[in-house]
Amino acid sequence: MVARPVSGQSFPMKTASDRPIAEARIRVRYAETDQMGVVYYANYLVWMEVARMEWCRAAGVNYRDMEREDGIFLAVAEANCRYRSPARFDDEVVVKTWVDEANSRIVIFHYEMAVGERLVATGHTRHVFVSNGMRKARCPMKYRGLFGIGEEPVVEEER
Amino acid sequence: MVARPVSGQSFPMKTASDRPIAEARIRVRYAETDQMGVVYYANYLVWMEVARMEWCRAAGVNYRDMEREDGIFLAVAEANCRYRSPARFDDEVVVKTWVDEANSRIVIFHYEMAVGERLVATGHTRHVFVSNGMRKARCPMKYRGLFGIGEEPVVEEER
Amino acid sequence: MVARPVSGQSFPMKTASDRPIAEARIRVRYAETDQMGVVYYANYLVWMEVARMEWCRAAGVNYRDMEREDGIFLAVAEANCRYRSPARFDDEVVVKTWVDEANSRIVIFHYEMAVGERLVATGHTRHVFVSNGMRKARCPMKYRGLFGIGEEPVVEEER
Amino acid sequence: MVARPVSGQSFPMKTASDRPIAEARIRVRYAETDQMGVVYYANYLVWMEVARMEWCRAAGVNYRDMEREDGIFLAVAEANCRYRSPARFDDEVVVKTWVDEANSRIVIFHYEMAVGERLVATGHTRHVFVSNGMRKARCPMKYRGLFGIGEEPVVEEER
Repeated sequence: MVARPVSGQSFPMKTASDRPIAEARIRVRYAETDQMGVVYYANYLVWMEVARMEWCRAAGVNYRDMEREDGIFLAVAEANCRYRSPARFDDEVVVKTWVDEANSRIVIFHYEMAVGERLVATGHTRHVFVSNGMRKARCPMKYRGLFGIGEEPVVEEER
Repeated sequence: MVARPVSGQSFPMKTASDRPIAEARIRVRYAETDQMGVVYYANYLVWMEVARMEWCRAAGVNYRDMEREDGIFLAVAEANCRYRSPARFDDEVVVKTWVDEANSRIVIFHYEMAVGERLVATGHTRHVFVSNGMRKARCPMKYRGLFGIGEEPVVEEER
Repeated sequence: MVARPVSGQSFPMKTASDRPIAEARIRVRYAETDQMGVVYYANYLVWMEVARMEWCRAAGVNYRDMEREDGIFLAVAEANCRYRSPARFDDEVVVKTWVDEANSRIVIFHYEMAVGERLVATGHTRHVFVSNGMRKARCPMKYRGLFGIGEEPVVEEER
Repeated sequence: MVARPVSGQSFPMKTASDRPIAEARIRVRYAETDQMGVVYYANYLVWMEVARMEWCRAAGVNYRDMEREDGIFLAVAEANCRYRSPARFDDEVVVKTWVDEANSRIVIFHYEMAVGERLVATGHTRHVFVSNGMRKARCPMKYRGLFGIGEEPVVEEER
């Protein structure tokens, strides 16, 4: 269901099944609808971002500081969304988010969006840690536990 | 690579390898950047939509009329984007689009986005034909050839 | 400070100084920033819309129903925003909103946006009541009190 | 019609009536519509930005370089839009843009948007030159002529 990480990945993935699930509540904005009378499809990715940030907050990762002080960003490498039933203006969408897999180089978030009991969309995003200038980087040590990244075998830095 | 259509699909898929490839040229807007200094990831889905409409225009499908006069819409069932390298403000992004698969119920579009020779992103979207009220529908006969939808075996209308 | 209503306006404006002030709290999304590192200027108008809807909710106007059941919309005729100091990612913006003036044809909303004690922006929007097809209309009787629209002299319907 | 510049402005404004008028052609995106079936009002400000950048290009101001190499940005201090008649999906909107007034501290752009002969919206934006960190700055000498900024009396630098 979830995209496999890049092949050649040398670190074992830790399935983060014991990590907390964050919930973001989003009221659908008029701006987010289109002339079909439902939410425009790209906006679900914006909601994923809102939920991801909520997850970070809940997990103790101050994303704003990670960017500003550590110069480390989570760049999106892949995004996927399956649209199950339409969300509409003024709906309250609950987005459940959790980290599916994480190591020092990548993080995969999973999302489930619902209006009441009705499933609206599901999706996932795969991210890579990058430094300023969009160069690949490692997750700073102090954030690893928070993302559920365990000990990794010491290897030669290959890039 | 491309999402398989819904299981139980009873019509043969026609691979539309002989269909024209449309090219949309998009100048990156300041509005589309984020504080990482690159294009925000949801905007690639907007560009896919622009390119899809361009494909429709090139193929002779007047999407505006299809909505207004026939009451038929192409609702998005799935969207996927892989981000290869960042697009930046003022870049000219060329989005190549083609129909990967199509039958009277669904259409799959594929996209390749590049800035000059540099690949920026690839992706696909899967769409279902719906009528007003978001109920599943069939592609109107007059548009089938344009989407590359061939003859389909006559079956009982199951819904 | 506030745009004067269309000239030739025959109804006295009621200054709605005794109307409730609504407060919307908005967490700045990453999507809303641009490469200058601050919120992109058009997004303040989206926040105004969110706050306007919050005002409607607080005042007892179900905007969703007004559109669906009464076929009456509030089309924007003018929008103005003065940017005082930048809002940034993850800031919590409090948008205070009130109806400045209202009659059966138009409504003027006023907005003040702040992050903590710091004023971020001020603005207003002028709206006209329209029916489907964007034709000018009158505010339905049942909503007039809610918008603070008082008795108006009976005049010939001029359009 | 156009907002007066900040009071206490000590430099004479040069009305830029002899400056070129830039034209940007924008095809309305599906993403830009809302459930009223017309373009969502905040998007007109995005089009203004597109047209502004087009004006810069036409005038010989490389805005990208001005940001990157000179560290000078045009921050928006005020935006105003009057909506005359709705723009709709797939319309081609022509945005005419010119500099109304400019000095070494501020620039005022004016906009007229039309679909064919039909006027869609008019507006203006007022900008201040800022450096990194959003501090007020002066337009670099090499860009002054391009913006139509003439000689200014030498004064004490007051900030």
